[in-house]
Amino acid sequence: MSNPLVDIHTHVYLPRYAEVLRSRATVPRILTREDGEERLVILDNEPSGGRPVGPQYWAREEKLRFMDLHGIDISVVSTANPWLDFFDAAEAHTIAKQLNDDMEEYCASSPAYANGPLKRIYGMGILPLVPGISTEALLECIQQIAAAPHLHGLIMGTRGVGKGLDDDALEPVWKAIADAGLVVFLHPHYGVDSSAWGEKDNGHVLPLALGFPFETTTAITRLILAGVYDRVPDLRILLAHSGGTLPQLSSRLASCIDHDPVVAARLQHDARFYLGKLFFDAVAYGPEELGFVSEVAGSERMMFGTDHPFFPPLSSTEKWKSVVENLEAIDTVTGWDKAEKDGVRGGNALKIFGIL
Amino acid sequence: MSNPLVDIHTHVYLPRYAEVLRSRATVPRILTREDGEERLVILDNEPSGGRPVGPQYWAREEKLRFMDLHGIDISVVSTANPWLDFFDAAEAHTIAKQLNDDMEEYCASSPAYANGPLKRIYGMGILPLVPGISTEALLECIQQIAAAPHLHGLIMGTRGVGKGLDDDALEPVWKAIADAGLVVFLHPHYGVDSSAWGEKDNGHVLPLALGFPFETTTAITRLILAGVYDRVPDLRILLAHSGGTLPQLSSRLASCIDHDPVVAARLQHDARFYLGKLFFDAVAYGPEELGFVSEVAGSERMMFGTDHPFFPPLSSTEKWKSVVENLEAIDTVTGWDKAEKDGVRGGNALKIFGIL
Repeated sequence: MSNPLVDIHTHVYLPRYAEVLRSRATVPRILTREDGEERLVILDNEPSGGRPVGPQYWAREEKLRFMDLHGIDISVVSTANPWLDFFDAAEAHTIAKQLNDDMEEYCASSPAYANGPLKRIYGMGILPLVPGISTEALLECIQQIAAAPHLHGLIMGTRGVGKGLDDDALEPVWKAIADAGLVVFLHPHYGVDSSAWGEKDNGHVLPLALGFPFETTTAITRLILAGVYDRVPDLRILLAHSGGTLPQLSSRLASCIDHDPVVAARLQHDARFYLGKLFFDAVAYGPEELGFVSEVAGSERMMFGTDHPFFPPLSSTEKWKSVVENLEAIDTVTGWDKAEKDGVRGGNALKIFGIL
Repeated sequence: MSNPLVDIHTHVYLPRYAEVLRSRATVPRILTREDGEERLVILDNEPSGGRPVGPQYWAREEKLRFMDLHGIDISVVSTANPWLDFFDAAEAHTIAKQLNDDMEEYCASSPAYANGPLKRIYGMGILPLVPGISTEALLECIQQIAAAPHLHGLIMGTRGVGKGLDDDALEPVWKAIADAGLVVFLHPHYGVDSSAWGEKDNGHVLPLALGFPFETTTAITRLILAGVYDRVPDLRILLAHSGGTLPQLSSRLASCIDHDPVVAARLQHDARFYLGKLFFDAVAYGPEELGFVSEVAGSERMMFGTDHPFFPPLSSTEKWKSVVENLEAIDTVTGWDKAEKDGVRGGNALKIFGIL
């Protein structure tokens, strides 16, 4: 196999999920405007009445068309946000199992890659992480995902079962995920308190450019401070958007821990040790950022991603600027040799997700 | 003059200000515990009942002792947070003028550096940035600071006169500061909504390690998005803590702006252009972070700092770990030659602040 281009940050609203969102009268929902355009509204305070959506968001042929346009050989697809925390526990459990089955079928029936044994599309499952869910239900879904031949990870948000990822109630979940060899794709959804953005109309810029990375950074930092990695050292977490802002804050975090005896006594290692346990997508849009992440964590922990179907171009036939920028960034990082670039473009993903 | 070590991130509660904080019955305040220990409480939800404070926080001989212990030749001192927004407009105006006079005297009466024309201590002034303040009062204080021989900048928080730094009301303030050639030291105080930190006791770690940089990043991003640099290109803003997280998010910010026509049409340049207009302290505690900031902004825009008197060591006679780490970080950045290191250690500060 030559050096495939593998996209590990690529989303879908599976048709069943899109239907659920269409059926809802409150956010999150897909609504149809008077002019017939469908809009996805995922947060209460969303600017501009939500984003226009169409087949790119749910149809597999559109995913494959996008992959072909950009030379992407293999995609590891995950459900887009929001996840399931707007359901009650019983509903969330039921739909999680259905969506995991749907995702396995979405992948299993995808075309073969280069006439070989691999598929063009693999996937990630989803857990019913909602308040009141039983540990048994979560473990059952982890086993379901682990048993699905084409699912190699699971995506989750930052709220756990309501109290964040430093919640003791998640301890058996981390252990089961690590034992199953699944990758956790940690992805933001809620951002931060929007009062921070002020009164000026800046569209989606502040919540997307700043709020998303702040949310991811806070969630993974809380998990680290809770000592999860000391107890579950094999846990493999992939951070969206190149780790948010954790790499740039890691030495500051280490210093703040050093000066706080309660936290320092709780952890077995310097904060930067835990950074080296994490995985990072290469969705940062610039070579300096990628080079920096590789300097603190190692390029072998980094993987190309697109964030498709978000950030679409204005015309429907051109290459997506967001994708072109992320590929150019990988190609122009100072100090990466060809093997490192090939790794970030796809080789690392096949190894880390166990797609071999 | 050889290569002096210059600390541009070093704070004081001037004696008049400490007295004001002692006189207050509500936060922010300095309170005396039953055992006689003074505690500084600057935020309502502060962990552990505030931080212990003593002469390090206000006495100039302690500042000089700290400088001598670490080989710091010259300090550019600024008032520590909180600033003046707990006063009404008239009170804030009065005390700002008094504190600016006090700071000038604090610097003017400091020892000479190496028996030459320079002092050991220079300073920054403060503006009465509170809701309801008149533009005239702000401009008067800018002129006061500009006229003070030993003040070369001013420190401010992120709230402006109540609506943040993208408030149109601040436009004449930015112009006057730029015309006066003063450096604005933008420093966090409030952090972000503390509900993001969850229920676990992590002491000050999350608000200091994450909340502070998030606040700075949000404030400067909003100022950039408002187009301030397009209208006041000579404005010189120094960002605390190596720019918070803006450097790691700058290409993502550029991409998000590209995909948001309203904001894109407002700005004359790519977001990364504005990054090159900013200045950064070298208070990041690690060489990778410093090297990264210099890659995106240039080492000639970076300056050593300590954050004294915060982050004290457990024993009173040892060198401060936070200072030693920041000096080691400068010394071990990959790719910096001796001239660049000397620049960051002090040469840049003398030029940027105009201390010559």
